[in-house]
Amino acid sequence: MKNIYVIGVGLIGGSLALDFKKLDKDICVYGIDHNNTHLDEAITLNVIDKKAELEDIKNADLVILSIPVDASVTMITDVLDQISDNTLVIDVGSTKRDICKATENHPNRRNFLAMHPIAGTEFSGPKAAIHGLFQNKTNIICEVEETAFTLQETALKMFSQIGMRIRYMNPKAHDKHIAYVSHLSHISSFMLGKTVIEKEKNERDIFDMAGSGFASTVRLAKSSPEMWTPIFKQNKENVIETLEEYIVNLTHFKELMKADNFEAIFNDMKNTNHIKDILKGIA
Amino acid sequence: MKNIYVIGVGLIGGSLALDFKKLDKDICVYGIDHNNTHLDEAITLNVIDKKAELEDIKNADLVILSIPVDASVTMITDVLDQISDNTLVIDVGSTKRDICKATENHPNRRNFLAMHPIAGTEFSGPKAAIHGLFQNKTNIICEVEETAFTLQETALKMFSQIGMRIRYMNPKAHDKHIAYVSHLSHISSFMLGKTVIEKEKNERDIFDMAGSGFASTVRLAKSSPEMWTPIFKQNKENVIETLEEYIVNLTHFKELMKADNFEAIFNDMKNTNHIKDILKGIA
Repeated sequence: MKNIYVIGVGLIGGSLALDFKKLDKDICVYGIDHNNTHLDEAITLNVIDKKAELEDIKNADLVILSIPVDASVTMITDVLDQISDNTLVIDVGSTKRDICKATENHPNRRNFLAMHPIAGTEFSGPKAAIHGLFQNKTNIICEVEETAFTLQETALKMFSQIGMRIRYMNPKAHDKHIAYVSHLSHISSFMLGKTVIEKEKNERDIFDMAGSGFASTVRLAKSSPEMWTPIFKQNKENVIETLEEYIVNLTHFKELMKADNFEAIFNDMKNTNHIKDILKGIA
Repeated sequence: MKNIYVIGVGLIGGSLALDFKKLDKDICVYGIDHNNTHLDEAITLNVIDKKAELEDIKNADLVILSIPVDASVTMITDVLDQISDNTLVIDVGSTKRDICKATENHPNRRNFLAMHPIAGTEFSGPKAAIHGLFQNKTNIICEVEETAFTLQETALKMFSQIGMRIRYMNPKAHDKHIAYVSHLSHISSFMLGKTVIEKEKNERDIFDMAGSGFASTVRLAKSSPEMWTPIFKQNKENVIETLEEYIVNLTHFKELMKADNFEAIFNDMKNTNHIKDILKGIA
């Protein structure tokens, strides 16, 4: 492992670069990004060593595709077209069905490993990249059996060295479940932020009343729309299903309140308190 | 200030006791709680010095009423009946209209200061009490002009010494705005937890896929139903209004997705990103 090319030097791509560079001092990280300011920042921050262009990836040992999921699906074919026989290509997108589908008949499919490291935050861009981001974080790998043995081995060794916990899953199941435990949270947070901003737009100092609870619940509403719009688009059916169930539960809660059935409201909350045990161990 | 009586030795009452005790070594804190285990814990943790009964509050310089809001409204009359002329009584509930109403014609109304320190977390009980909880936290005081001058002065001095930022508001406005910046967050979080738990109840290991984003958004679903049910009951009209607006926004988002209007979805999120600036400074 010598030449790593990161396409998209943001939070995830940049953090992978930082961690991988620590594994071997001979590693050189090249950044490819349509945003030249990001590339300059990434160099200043030592996230990457050099700028590069897409045609340079023929020299890559590893290509990290870490751009919005719609761009990944478009670009993955180009990437697989241009790599050499022994290049490993990984992507880090929050949806896995479309990218696996886009690669299924490519002659270099075995150079590709589809994955989703569950390590995002509400921040983005090279400044958001940090060392150690993946320590004890889950990395979901899809269709591992479609990747060449030697590249599987290389990848798994590197992931283990930077502290990732590995889980295997098929892309369809990944997209269905991640809609519940990630995509829906983003929408609930964005719409909470929207509801409060709409109401309070003429009363700015009302936010003095907001405490850490509000801040926590609305945190994901700081996330990048550039990144999240394509995720919702690619995972449309699953996301709509989760949203419908969420709206049903909220509407039911509202109806219970209207009917003064506070015993049922109490029980609803009591049963959900169980989330305490479920969340144990999640940062 | 010598004898402080805390009725309800949980997160807020206990944390106030801890901070106030540091102000003067002569202060003795008495705990009153229907839960004797909590009283024992509070003594072990040095949150209180001694156990007491309600009839002892005739000796109080300060009474802190920090129990669920329905119990506060019932008990405040008893408390005001039994205190001495110079006792200051404060309550810390998350709703202010009902308790202000319950006290308005009481002969000792001027001994009472209605307030809401915005410092809650998802934890409860004496173990949740911590030193310094109120540092840089907003404390909303309602109907300050109904409290006796000397007791206003005593209270404000103590609040300032433990680091609180003071805001004044009428109870009706408090209950309306707090529904947006606090009560709605709790419901959105509880219902998010419920939606995910319902879906994934037979697939426990799915929670391995949950990251810090989900944990943050669902954090408030760990909160105490004993405390929150009466809050929703007392603030029913305001909370229903916020819930309705939230559901409208979520439904609109879902309809945009169904119509493949991802440009509008992008704009919706982009406009809400503005929450970044609003939240600056909230822990």
